[in-house]
Amino acid sequence: MPSIKPKDNCGQVFGIEGLTLGATSAAIRKKDRLDLVVLLLKETATVSGVFTQNNFCAAPVQICRQRLSQGKSINAMVINTGVANAGTGADGIEDAKNICHELAKLLKIDPDSILPFSTGVIMERLPVDKIIAGLPRCVEAQLTMGWEEASRGILTTDLVPKISSRSFKIGEQSISVTGMAKGSGMIKPNMATMLAFVATDAHVSHKCLDEIVRYANDRTFNCITVDGDTSTNDSFMLIATGTCGGPKVTSTDDPAFTKIRDQITSVCEDLAKKIVLDGEGATKFIEIRVEGGSSKTEAREVGFSVANSPLVKTAFYASDANLGRIMSAIGAARVTDLDVSKVDMWIGDVLVAKNGGPAPSYREVDVKPFMKSDEIVVTIRLGRGKDSVTIWTCDLSHDYIKINGEYRS
Amino acid sequence: MPSIKPKDNCGQVFGIEGLTLGATSAAIRKKDRLDLVVLLLKETATVSGVFTQNNFCAAPVQICRQRLSQGKSINAMVINTGVANAGTGADGIEDAKNICHELAKLLKIDPDSILPFSTGVIMERLPVDKIIAGLPRCVEAQLTMGWEEASRGILTTDLVPKISSRSFKIGEQSISVTGMAKGSGMIKPNMATMLAFVATDAHVSHKCLDEIVRYANDRTFNCITVDGDTSTNDSFMLIATGTCGGPKVTSTDDPAFTKIRDQITSVCEDLAKKIVLDGEGATKFIEIRVEGGSSKTEAREVGFSVANSPLVKTAFYASDANLGRIMSAIGAARVTDLDVSKVDMWIGDVLVAKNGGPAPSYREVDVKPFMKSDEIVVTIRLGRGKDSVTIWTCDLSHDYIKINGEYRS
Repeated sequence: MPSIKPKDNCGQVFGIEGLTLGATSAAIRKKDRLDLVVLLLKETATVSGVFTQNNFCAAPVQICRQRLSQGKSINAMVINTGVANAGTGADGIEDAKNICHELAKLLKIDPDSILPFSTGVIMERLPVDKIIAGLPRCVEAQLTMGWEEASRGILTTDLVPKISSRSFKIGEQSISVTGMAKGSGMIKPNMATMLAFVATDAHVSHKCLDEIVRYANDRTFNCITVDGDTSTNDSFMLIATGTCGGPKVTSTDDPAFTKIRDQITSVCEDLAKKIVLDGEGATKFIEIRVEGGSSKTEAREVGFSVANSPLVKTAFYASDANLGRIMSAIGAARVTDLDVSKVDMWIGDVLVAKNGGPAPSYREVDVKPFMKSDEIVVTIRLGRGKDSVTIWTCDLSHDYIKINGEYRS
Repeated sequence: MPSIKPKDNCGQVFGIEGLTLGATSAAIRKKDRLDLVVLLLKETATVSGVFTQNNFCAAPVQICRQRLSQGKSINAMVINTGVANAGTGADGIEDAKNICHELAKLLKIDPDSILPFSTGVIMERLPVDKIIAGLPRCVEAQLTMGWEEASRGILTTDLVPKISSRSFKIGEQSISVTGMAKGSGMIKPNMATMLAFVATDAHVSHKCLDEIVRYANDRTFNCITVDGDTSTNDSFMLIATGTCGGPKVTSTDDPAFTKIRDQITSVCEDLAKKIVLDGEGATKFIEIRVEGGSSKTEAREVGFSVANSPLVKTAFYASDANLGRIMSAIGAARVTDLDVSKVDMWIGDVLVAKNGGPAPSYREVDVKPFMKSDEIVVTIRLGRGKDSVTIWTCDLSHDYIKINGEYRS
């Protein structure tokens, strides 16, 4: 089978005209670690975003939501790691606003045109002074090609930075899409992954960009899980600088809209998969394809029930074709009236279950090589309808326990 | 704080007149391990039960449901471990019925008066011949005081057998309640735990017994989780032999009804807690009290969101007062319009969060001794209403991964 893993970050990164990035170390949690990033946007840029559905959403998420919903033009973004500024109440809002205020003074722009983002430990106050002291260095470091430094500056427990970049043509017009993301634990986004920033120089109306952000998010960041824990800080921001020089796309009927949307979705899929591949303690990359659902919602319920089951995840870790655990997780999904006698399942290209029981042709030896691989595809057919969903996840290993038993120490 | 853990099994076990138990080794998965149990009931006995809501419910669960719903009188139960007889389709039904048929021949009773139960690996066929060969030994071994052997005969990955027993008086009338349960992984019952059998010699009508089984189950087995995985085989059976000699309780308004119900619930709570205490890899026993919900359902959603979060569970394992993970899990629960600024939280008796943020008086040093203990109480107040729920769970340790990465080998 062809590899389902995302490719390494070694490909070309295309800078996006109208957007610069700079990172620095503000010593928020550790010295000499990049932990503060500033993005500057040209006035022409359009910004759209989706955020976590966690009721305890972080202070910066609340501020972003408010500023975006007021239709403000966005000129900058400031991102810190180490402290999530979540569960910090009114103090947290004030901390984030103070940082925006200081950055606005440096840049001589409106503080309300700045979006703040944070990721890290929840229920701790931001070290505002350290962050403010780092801002001038972030401003000085601004580069169109600053993606690589910035992508390292937003990491926490991640082992590798995550960048994805594409260039394509619409007619004679070259357009680029580049994105970065972070996330490794507390990953089961419910609207968006922990932090993802994707930019294009395409010229797209705000309405079209809103459409694309939802479309891409539903098919990528909302389809991954590491540990089933929805973070307080998930944010996915999509920026269109409009600097490519082509005509503005203002209608979803425009053929250019579909092309741009699909390229952006492809970058998001790549980033989402990279988050899973770098999942805390992950040793295997797993794709769960759920087909034949009577709705996308129920296909998602089944996919996530399997992908989040600790018993399924430990079986993958052990390369153990413990089919019953997968079947049990399918049965435990919140789907009413699931007729299990219609459920078929494949591991790799081996039919393992037919009509809810072991397939007559199934021999465990046939499936062993697929289980031993570091990428596994599970296909589940529900036999209820035509809706399908693909979920990406990883296994559950000793290292997950190690990382999370020691995270703060 | 007083201990919240269940007591050891060293207390007196009261036999239930009208019920005998016998166990043997049928070498289903391992030699010389008790793995087959038969219970025989007097004709006067009334039986009520609840079963898993997993759509992939096992063949024996389907048979039990059918026989109980037809109002048949139940004279025997047969339980095997090692193979769950789930995900086995029509063959699995036939296997279970064949075993009942052979036991019926031995006992000269109606096969439809026998309830079968299985627990173990899913999607494997039962070794019917081995089980049938073991049945005569189980019948010979029948004892009123056979609870201890039987409780060992139903275990799988459990480390210890789980028995709970009470004797109490209604007027001059002595009544006993004794129960046994098994379960250690794939524990997040949705109606009942993996396998639990509770018997009393009380004389109770079928209607009253149905009422008690639901009441007790909602407050005990449905309030525990080890790993959030709902099994295919969960069954909780309540037997009233009616041999105590007292008058029959036929109305829920009878003061004796409440007394019997509460004693049975107390035995169930003890067994449910023992399952958690013996959870796969568990090193800590954790009680999550959710108060101030606008419904029991939402309080349960919050409790289970916290109790099933791998990040919360690993923090408990590490004795790390990582409050933010708990708050994030509260926020991620499926509760609409949760106003997090009304959420307060205690660990042990230390107020750690007030109005959705860190409590002003909170110092991490105060909470350390509570986190280091092998039993931890978390109290969450939602500030939405008057409904409360208590959930019992355990931590997530290296050994959980070890046990489940090696279970079948």
